[in-house]
Amino acid sequence: MRILVVNPNRVDACTELIRTVATAAAAPGTEVEVTHPASGPVVLSGQNEVLRSAIGVLDRVESLREGADAIVLAGFGEPGREAAQELAGVPVLDITECGPALAQLRGRRYTVVTSTEEAVPVVEDRLHTLHLDGRCAEVLATGLGVPDLVGRREEAQSVVIDVAKRAQGDVVVLGCGGMAGLAPAVAEAIGRPVVDPVPAAVELAQTLVRLGQ
Amino acid sequence: MRILVVNPNRVDACTELIRTVATAAAAPGTEVEVTHPASGPVVLSGQNEVLRSAIGVLDRVESLREGADAIVLAGFGEPGREAAQELAGVPVLDITECGPALAQLRGRRYTVVTSTEEAVPVVEDRLHTLHLDGRCAEVLATGLGVPDLVGRREEAQSVVIDVAKRAQGDVVVLGCGGMAGLAPAVAEAIGRPVVDPVPAAVELAQTLVRLGQ
Amino acid sequence: MRILVVNPNRVDACTELIRTVATAAAAPGTEVEVTHPASGPVVLSGQNEVLRSAIGVLDRVESLREGADAIVLAGFGEPGREAAQELAGVPVLDITECGPALAQLRGRRYTVVTSTEEAVPVVEDRLHTLHLDGRCAEVLATGLGVPDLVGRREEAQSVVIDVAKRAQGDVVVLGCGGMAGLAPAVAEAIGRPVVDPVPAAVELAQTLVRLGQ
Amino acid sequence: MRILVVNPNRVDACTELIRTVATAAAAPGTEVEVTHPASGPVVLSGQNEVLRSAIGVLDRVESLREGADAIVLAGFGEPGREAAQELAGVPVLDITECGPALAQLRGRRYTVVTSTEEAVPVVEDRLHTLHLDGRCAEVLATGLGVPDLVGRREEAQSVVIDVAKRAQGDVVVLGCGGMAGLAPAVAEAIGRPVVDPVPAAVELAQTLVRLGQ
Amino acid sequence: MRILVVNPNRVDACTELIRTVATAAAAPGTEVEVTHPASGPVVLSGQNEVLRSAIGVLDRVESLREGADAIVLAGFGEPGREAAQELAGVPVLDITECGPALAQLRGRRYTVVTSTEEAVPVVEDRLHTLHLDGRCAEVLATGLGVPDLVGRREEAQSVVIDVAKRAQGDVVVLGCGGMAGLAPAVAEAIGRPVVDPVPAAVELAQTLVRLGQ
Amino acid sequence: MRILVVNPNRVDACTELIRTVATAAAAPGTEVEVTHPASGPVVLSGQNEVLRSAIGVLDRVESLREGADAIVLAGFGEPGREAAQELAGVPVLDITECGPALAQLRGRRYTVVTSTEEAVPVVEDRLHTLHLDGRCAEVLATGLGVPDLVGRREEAQSVVIDVAKRAQGDVVVLGCGGMAGLAPAVAEAIGRPVVDPVPAAVELAQTLVRLGQ
Repeated sequence: MRILVVNPNRVDACTELIRTVATAAAAPGTEVEVTHPASGPVVLSGQNEVLRSAIGVLDRVESLREGADAIVLAGFGEPGREAAQELAGVPVLDITECGPALAQLRGRRYTVVTSTEEAVPVVEDRLHTLHLDGRCAEVLATGLGVPDLVGRREEAQSVVIDVAKRAQGDVVVLGCGGMAGLAPAVAEAIGRPVVDPVPAAVELAQTLVRLGQ
Repeated sequence: MRILVVNPNRVDACTELIRTVATAAAAPGTEVEVTHPASGPVVLSGQNEVLRSAIGVLDRVESLREGADAIVLAGFGEPGREAAQELAGVPVLDITECGPALAQLRGRRYTVVTSTEEAVPVVEDRLHTLHLDGRCAEVLATGLGVPDLVGRREEAQSVVIDVAKRAQGDVVVLGCGGMAGLAPAVAEAIGRPVVDPVPAAVELAQTLVRLGQ
Repeated sequence: MRILVVNPNRVDACTELIRTVATAAAAPGTEVEVTHPASGPVVLSGQNEVLRSAIGVLDRVESLREGADAIVLAGFGEPGREAAQELAGVPVLDITECGPALAQLRGRRYTVVTSTEEAVPVVEDRLHTLHLDGRCAEVLATGLGVPDLVGRREEAQSVVIDVAKRAQGDVVVLGCGGMAGLAPAVAEAIGRPVVDPVPAAVELAQTLVRLGQ
Repeated sequence: MRILVVNPNRVDACTELIRTVATAAAAPGTEVEVTHPASGPVVLSGQNEVLRSAIGVLDRVESLREGADAIVLAGFGEPGREAAQELAGVPVLDITECGPALAQLRGRRYTVVTSTEEAVPVVEDRLHTLHLDGRCAEVLATGLGVPDLVGRREEAQSVVIDVAKRAQGDVVVLGCGGMAGLAPAVAEAIGRPVVDPVPAAVELAQTLVRLGQ
Repeated sequence: MRILVVNPNRVDACTELIRTVATAAAAPGTEVEVTHPASGPVVLSGQNEVLRSAIGVLDRVESLREGADAIVLAGFGEPGREAAQELAGVPVLDITECGPALAQLRGRRYTVVTSTEEAVPVVEDRLHTLHLDGRCAEVLATGLGVPDLVGRREEAQSVVIDVAKRAQGDVVVLGCGGMAGLAPAVAEAIGRPVVDPVPAAVELAQTLVRLGQ
Repeated sequence: MRILVVNPNRVDACTELIRTVATAAAAPGTEVEVTHPASGPVVLSGQNEVLRSAIGVLDRVESLREGADAIVLAGFGEPGREAAQELAGVPVLDITECGPALAQLRGRRYTVVTSTEEAVPVVEDRLHTLHLDGRCAEVLATGLGVPDLVGRREEAQSVVIDVAKRAQGDVVVLGCGGMAGLAPAVAEAIGRPVVDPVPAAVELAQTLVRLGQ
């Protein structure tokens, strides 16, 4: 089985991080290919850049879908799943949906801990659109963008833990691809389940493929 | 005052139609400039093309915003308002919101009559995202795309009237820029108020500007 | 075009204020007539007086509708629009709907700043009835009734600004006819768009008339 | 204990019918006084008349509240409870709330069978305002106004039964004071519980008084 | 008339308390029988024990339903009403529904004051399931379980009053059978109506029986 | 890894079927143990039997949880997950949640095809409780109970296909453990994704365990 994962930003270290985490979630026999757009904004610091990055994601999907059994979009709250699904003949999974999907199996209400303040309304609106807001306790910002989350790892982990401790939900969802890999440390620190949507999406992609959906 | 109107598709006749209707809604002293993307898909027949067209719209907003007092996006159910608002220092109005805004002042529940079947879930989701679905009775498709709506005018009007007659709402919103100008004929045929969101948006844009918002 | 505006209270200074603000929102050629009930309670300090004032409003609508192209009800949260619409052959606009209608075009969530504490549940319920509560962040009271809002203008403006600064919404709606005219000062003080529903309603009334609805 | 019941219309036969049904629901020692407005519209055939009748109801409440332990408003979907509650120092119950309150104890979803088509949106909106719409399956009209419901009793009963048979709810609420007394016959005919909100309100009023609320 | 009341826990003092309060709510000629499960958990301190107690409740309903005109389940937020209704040929009332039913007639929003913190999500979920959450302001815990509520009466009353004073709702519902009888003291202390769901359910049961439902 | 699956009914053929399907969804190294209650109702034909069966399920969970890494409850719409979660120190997954969780990743709205008519409101209420109803298009009954679904396999498959063809959702969820294994045939017949919640739950259980949640 082959899973294509597309990181919407073009921060190399972030793509590398996602590759590590996504690959670790692959079953024997599953090949995970991680990529990011060939052109477009590097860091996505606004709605305009987010929308432009989606085109780069679609281009990647279009050129690399051949042979993929499922596709994972690794941007949290970002647009494009419906369009990518239209291009691909295989399941397209968005980490924005995969995180809450698992969180709702593990707890009654979940809290999303995301990157910057400006991401909060975007994530809230996306969860509302998907009818995934009914059990979302809140969306909290760390104030850290992708470069800081990926580049200043120790500090980022400490901030994520601090914010996660304030969560009202009984499960926490890491609401940014740049937080990939932090779940075990955060879970241990706060004593509650923490869902990392990147490996969650890779697992769910394999599940859909194995079940023939 | 100057209002910039951007048609997301690149069907010249549609842009021309929108120009005529939008200009007629301009008060004395208001200049209306109507444009469409310089490149990208001509007809938007899927989520992929819709998303790509949004970039062309953003490019237009970026290059033409100078001197504009407000901007109108003339695609019904299409993405990009939040991103365009970020680029523009002036109010950006989306006809998807302007139609229901006026309809809700004129009646208790409104029906959207839109283009093709595939547009129905897109419009429904967008209205849900915006919390404008509570008074939306339903979204009905005519089965006609923009080229037919614009190019086969008489037949289009007749189909829109037939569909509008089945509306459960007490007000009808024309849910496609390609239906611009049909409101008077449809209203007369069905005996209920019919909101054309293109002139509605031009009127509302002028209102926001005049009120200094 | 002729717009009839009915203030539900009988505080002369309030009617005068509404006249000034409403008239300023009239386009060339639009005549605005502002009135209040001939009898009934002067200040509306409870549900009982509010309901009784609605009859005075209906009487005014009945006797003055002849020649009016649209009617504006200038009470925020007050009953009577449906009944007035039944009497009038022309559009009847309620400022309770017009304020949120424009606010939702300008921002993601709006805060209503209203008069007294007892008005808060009334406004909340009315917005819920109209399905306009989905994007209402909150309804905040200033603690000032119409006489204070109109008669002690400077102090009123200062209190409205203080309350508006606490708004969680990214747009503020002035939730009382007695606050007419305060929008520019409040907007400047808080750095966010502020919708005055009185001129908003006059603008929207003219829009509906011009669009033939 | 003394319960004051106010019928909002001035159809004598309807008031008489309500008196019979309400009195039968009084416990030993409870005195039920049934009245209607001293002036105002006789039959309420529109929003305008409904609103005007509410003033007559408030006047009755004001003049007769002395000595009453609770007050029942016997109009289904009509305004005025909040205002009447403000006047009265005792509980004011609206049959629009009492019918659904009991129906929700007896079944999963209830259907309201009401008078004319024009009452349907009014009842729907009132139930929505009160957050009583979540378990309302639908509101169905019989097409009969109060004079027919009260004056042509046999025919009315037969029509109510026919409409009630189409109910999707597992409980039916009679949605008009003019249907008072029909519950047993309708229940027998359709084989489902049928709530008559008039005796329901008298029972609930006594309950609130006995519980000291 | 005979009403069977089943207390889901097996704390004798609680059953005795419920007997006293329930009996006081019986009209002349109404016999109230109060019982609890013959076996199963004594105190219900978790979801597991709550579910097991429901079987004991069903067994009691099965063996004692003969001759009962209505059945009251005296556990707040506990499961089993649907199953008990299936067994009984007569109305089964759950105090979880009866409390809010009366509270909604007495105020705009109600606050539930319940036993322990772990009961809060259970009560919230049950109210949501029943569509009774729309007017629920909040569910507050006292931190006291049934044994403390029943056995340390004075302290319990004082804690309930302290918590009820923080209620945002304009009516308070006592959310535990172990609080039966506290309503008058709490109401006096907080100056707002307080609904005791145990006598409320007995009253409502008699109402349903008298109305033949 | 060891997954314990508990079928709430005691129909041996059903447990056997679930064993086959669940085992097929196990990854190498995952052991799946399938069981059903030691006592209690065999077929669950009502709310009373369903509630009683839950106790048998809890007993099984209690006695067999040792060594299990996750537990799957294989009844669709049946109670007990919260109580079982309380007993188990490991994740407990309910197929009622797992089916919709995957369906929402594969489509916009899902239709549940369930067993008998009496199961419909139970499933609807459970989905509402879980906030999983927002994207549920409808719950349709086949009219077949577990014995027929399991014992008359060919006929059952044909009926499920007929009902699934009427689905308005773009994904179908098989809403009964007795339908385990039918997904491929139904999917092929209707041309839409069909989610079998039994293997879905086994897959999701393994995912949660692998992700350390």
